[in-house]
Amino acid sequence: MTATFPESTAWTPRPAIEFSSQRAVRRHNLGLVLRQVVERGPRSRATIALDTGLNKATVSRLVSELIDLGLVAECGIEARATVGRPGHMLAVAGEGAVALGLEINVDYLGVRATDLSGRSRYRALETADNRLRGTDAVLDRLAELASGALREVRAQGLRPIGATVALPGLVDVERGVLLTAPNLRWNDVAVVDQLRDRIEEDLPLDADNEANLAALAELWEGVAVGISDFMYASGQVGVGGGVILGGDLFRGYRGFGGEFGHMTVEADGPLCACSSRGCLETLCGIESLLGSEGGPLATAATGRRVAVLARRARASDSEALTVLAECGRWLGVALGNVVNLLSLEAIVLGGHFAPIAEWLAPAIGEELDTRVLGGNGAVPSVVASTLGPEAAVRGAAATQLRRVIADPACVSR
Amino acid sequence: MTATFPESTAWTPRPAIEFSSQRAVRRHNLGLVLRQVVERGPRSRATIALDTGLNKATVSRLVSELIDLGLVAECGIEARATVGRPGHMLAVAGEGAVALGLEINVDYLGVRATDLSGRSRYRALETADNRLRGTDAVLDRLAELASGALREVRAQGLRPIGATVALPGLVDVERGVLLTAPNLRWNDVAVVDQLRDRIEEDLPLDADNEANLAALAELWEGVAVGISDFMYASGQVGVGGGVILGGDLFRGYRGFGGEFGHMTVEADGPLCACSSRGCLETLCGIESLLGSEGGPLATAATGRRVAVLARRARASDSEALTVLAECGRWLGVALGNVVNLLSLEAIVLGGHFAPIAEWLAPAIGEELDTRVLGGNGAVPSVVASTLGPEAAVRGAAATQLRRVIADPACVSR
Repeated sequence: MTATFPESTAWTPRPAIEFSSQRAVRRHNLGLVLRQVVERGPRSRATIALDTGLNKATVSRLVSELIDLGLVAECGIEARATVGRPGHMLAVAGEGAVALGLEINVDYLGVRATDLSGRSRYRALETADNRLRGTDAVLDRLAELASGALREVRAQGLRPIGATVALPGLVDVERGVLLTAPNLRWNDVAVVDQLRDRIEEDLPLDADNEANLAALAELWEGVAVGISDFMYASGQVGVGGGVILGGDLFRGYRGFGGEFGHMTVEADGPLCACSSRGCLETLCGIESLLGSEGGPLATAATGRRVAVLARRARASDSEALTVLAECGRWLGVALGNVVNLLSLEAIVLGGHFAPIAEWLAPAIGEELDTRVLGGNGAVPSVVASTLGPEAAVRGAAATQLRRVIADPACVSR
Repeated sequence: MTATFPESTAWTPRPAIEFSSQRAVRRHNLGLVLRQVVERGPRSRATIALDTGLNKATVSRLVSELIDLGLVAECGIEARATVGRPGHMLAVAGEGAVALGLEINVDYLGVRATDLSGRSRYRALETADNRLRGTDAVLDRLAELASGALREVRAQGLRPIGATVALPGLVDVERGVLLTAPNLRWNDVAVVDQLRDRIEEDLPLDADNEANLAALAELWEGVAVGISDFMYASGQVGVGGGVILGGDLFRGYRGFGGEFGHMTVEADGPLCACSSRGCLETLCGIESLLGSEGGPLATAATGRRVAVLARRARASDSEALTVLAECGRWLGVALGNVVNLLSLEAIVLGGHFAPIAEWLAPAIGEELDTRVLGGNGAVPSVVASTLGPEAAVRGAAATQLRRVIADPACVSR
C-alpha cells in the first residue's frame, strides 16, 4: 500500500505533542505521589489526593502503577474517626527498590545499600591500603563487595535500581572516569566501565567525587538539613571538599569545583602528592595529623588512631593539643579563603575531622574571626558531621534513589 | 452614600486577579519590545511583530507606550524592497533615558552617564586620596560630581532614571550601606542615604561592591561577553574580586562573595589594612607593586606610574620584571585557589592589572599549571580587561539601565 498524505496530516503533530506532554505530566505526577509516601510516611490514597490536589481516580491509577513498579505496597487499613469506608494504607514497598553506594578511598572500600525509606539494608567497610594494591585488584575487590551486597539485598527481596561509586579525586561524571586521584596515585581510570565489566548485573552505574557525595548526604540526611550554602570539608588521607550553593551541589564550569584539599596555604610548603607545594592536605591530611608516631600509616588503624588522639586531647595531653591546634589553624586559614570567596552559611567538618572537631573548632574560629572580611556578620557556623565514615556511600546511594523518586517510571521490572 | 456589598462581590477577586496578570503580561511585553530596539538596533513595528511573535496591533500599542515613556522615538522611514507601505523606523530615544554610574574608590571618584543605547553621555574621573579627606567631604564631592552630571545630561535632553554607586568594600546592597572598606578606612557608612540627602533630584539610588559591578560590565560589554563562569580580579589600591557563575553575579548566602583581595596567601605575612595577615592585596596591591620608589603614593599619578612600570618592563628593566613576576606569582597562587574551588572558564584581569597583564600572565599561568588539580583540562584562560578605570561605573550605570529595559513601566514621567 502506498503511503498517502490526506489533508488531515496537517493535524498529526498536535496529538503527538499532546501525547508526549501527557506522558510527561503522568511521569511527574507519579513522582509526586511516590514522594508523598517516601517523605511523609504511610498514608491512604484519599490523603494523597487531598495533599497533592490530584483527583482520587488519578491517584488510584498512579498508585496502581507504583505498586506494579514494586515501589509502593499496601500495608493495612487506615485508622480514622471520620465517616466513610476506611482506605488501604500505602507505604514504601518493603521488598521494593534499593540503591548501592560504593566507595574507593585511599585506605578503605565501602558499600552501603539503602532502601527507598532511607534505611540501610546492607553495609560493609573494608580497610586496606589501596595504594599498595594495583588498580585491577582494587576494582576486583570492590566488584566482589558490590556483588555480595547485591546477592544480600536480593535475598531480602529487594530490587537494586542503581549504584554510584564515590572516588577520592577529580571525576568526569559524564564518562564515569576518575581523572586523577593524587593520594591513590590513579590517573584516567574508567571506573564505571571497569566495574560494569566486573559486576554481572546490568545496573545503572555512576561515579562522583567522594566529598561531593558526602556533602549531599549532609544536605539530605545529615547536619546540614535545611542549610542551603555550606562547604563540607572532609579529613581523609587527603582533604576533600564539597560545596553546596543554593541547596544544590556546585560543580563549576569544568565540573571540578570544591577541590579544597589542594588549596595553597603555604606557597613554598611541603611537596604534595599532586606535585604542587603547600596544599592544605600536606598540613591537615591524616598523615600529618597522626605523624610518624605509631609507625607508618597502617590504614586499618586510622580511625582507631584518630580516636586515640581524641582521647589524649581529652586528657589534656599537650602534644595532642598542639597537633590539633596546628591542624585547626591551617584549616581555619583555608576556610577563611573559602568564606571570603563564597560567603557561606556554615562549614561542616567530616571524615576524620568530625571526631576531633571540638579541638579543631576553636582554632578554626580564631582564624575565621581574623581573616574573614566583615567580621561576625560574615563568619559562618562550624558544625561536625554525625554520619561517620559512611557519609559518601550514603550520598552515593541517595543520588540513585532520588533519581527514582523524581521519575519512578525509569524503573522497569 | 453607604457602601453596599451586593451578591456580585463574590466575583470581585477574579477580575482583579486577571487585571493584575494582564498587567504583568503587558509589562513583560513592553520590555520585550524595548529590548528589540535596544539590542538589535533601529527597526519597524512590523519587524518587531515578526521577531517577537506579538501581533501588529499589540506592538503598535506597546510602541506608543514606550514613546510616551520617552524611551523610544521614530527615526525616519524604513527602506525596503518588499510591497506594502514602508513603516516608520523606531530607535532608542536620543532624548531618552540615561543612568549614572558613580564610584568612590581609594584614590579617585568616578562618574559616567550611559544612555539606553550604551553610549557614554558624560564622564568624569577625579583623582584624589580619599583616605585623607573625611567621609563627609568625599560624599559632598561625589554629590557635586553627580549633580554636575545630572545638569549636563538634562542639558542634552536626557532623562536620568537612576544611579548606582560602586564602593571598594563590603556593601549591604539592601540598605545601601558600606559595611567596611579597609583601604578607605570607612566602616558602616550609609552611602545611599547620605548621597540622597546631598543630591537634589529624587532618583532611584543603589550601591554595590566596585569589583562586582566591574565584573558585570565585563560580562555585558567587556572581554567576558559570552563567558558564563569567570572571576574578575582587579588591581586597585587594594585588590578586588567579582565572581560570575552561570552568567549571573554570585553574591553568596551572606552577600559578601568574591572577596578575593583578602585571600590569605602567606599566613604569617604582612599586616593588612583589614587587620588580617598575608592577604593577597598586601603582596599585589598597587602600593606593593609600585613600592616606595617615587615617594609615597601620589594618587593622581597612580595610573601614570603603572604605565611607567609597563614601559620599563617593555625595555627589559630587570627590576621592573622582577616586581611584575613576583606580583604575578602571588596572583597565580591565589587564583589557583579560586580555580580549584570554582572550576572557572576564565579569569579577567582588570584595574591596574590590565595594562601590565602581559607580564603578569606568564607567572600566573605557571602557578595555575602547578597548583590547579586536573592540569590543562582545568586551567582557565587569563584575559585582560579593556574597559580601563571605567569598568565599575560602566557596570553601575548598566545595572540601572537593565532594570528599565526589563520593566520599562518603572519609568514614570
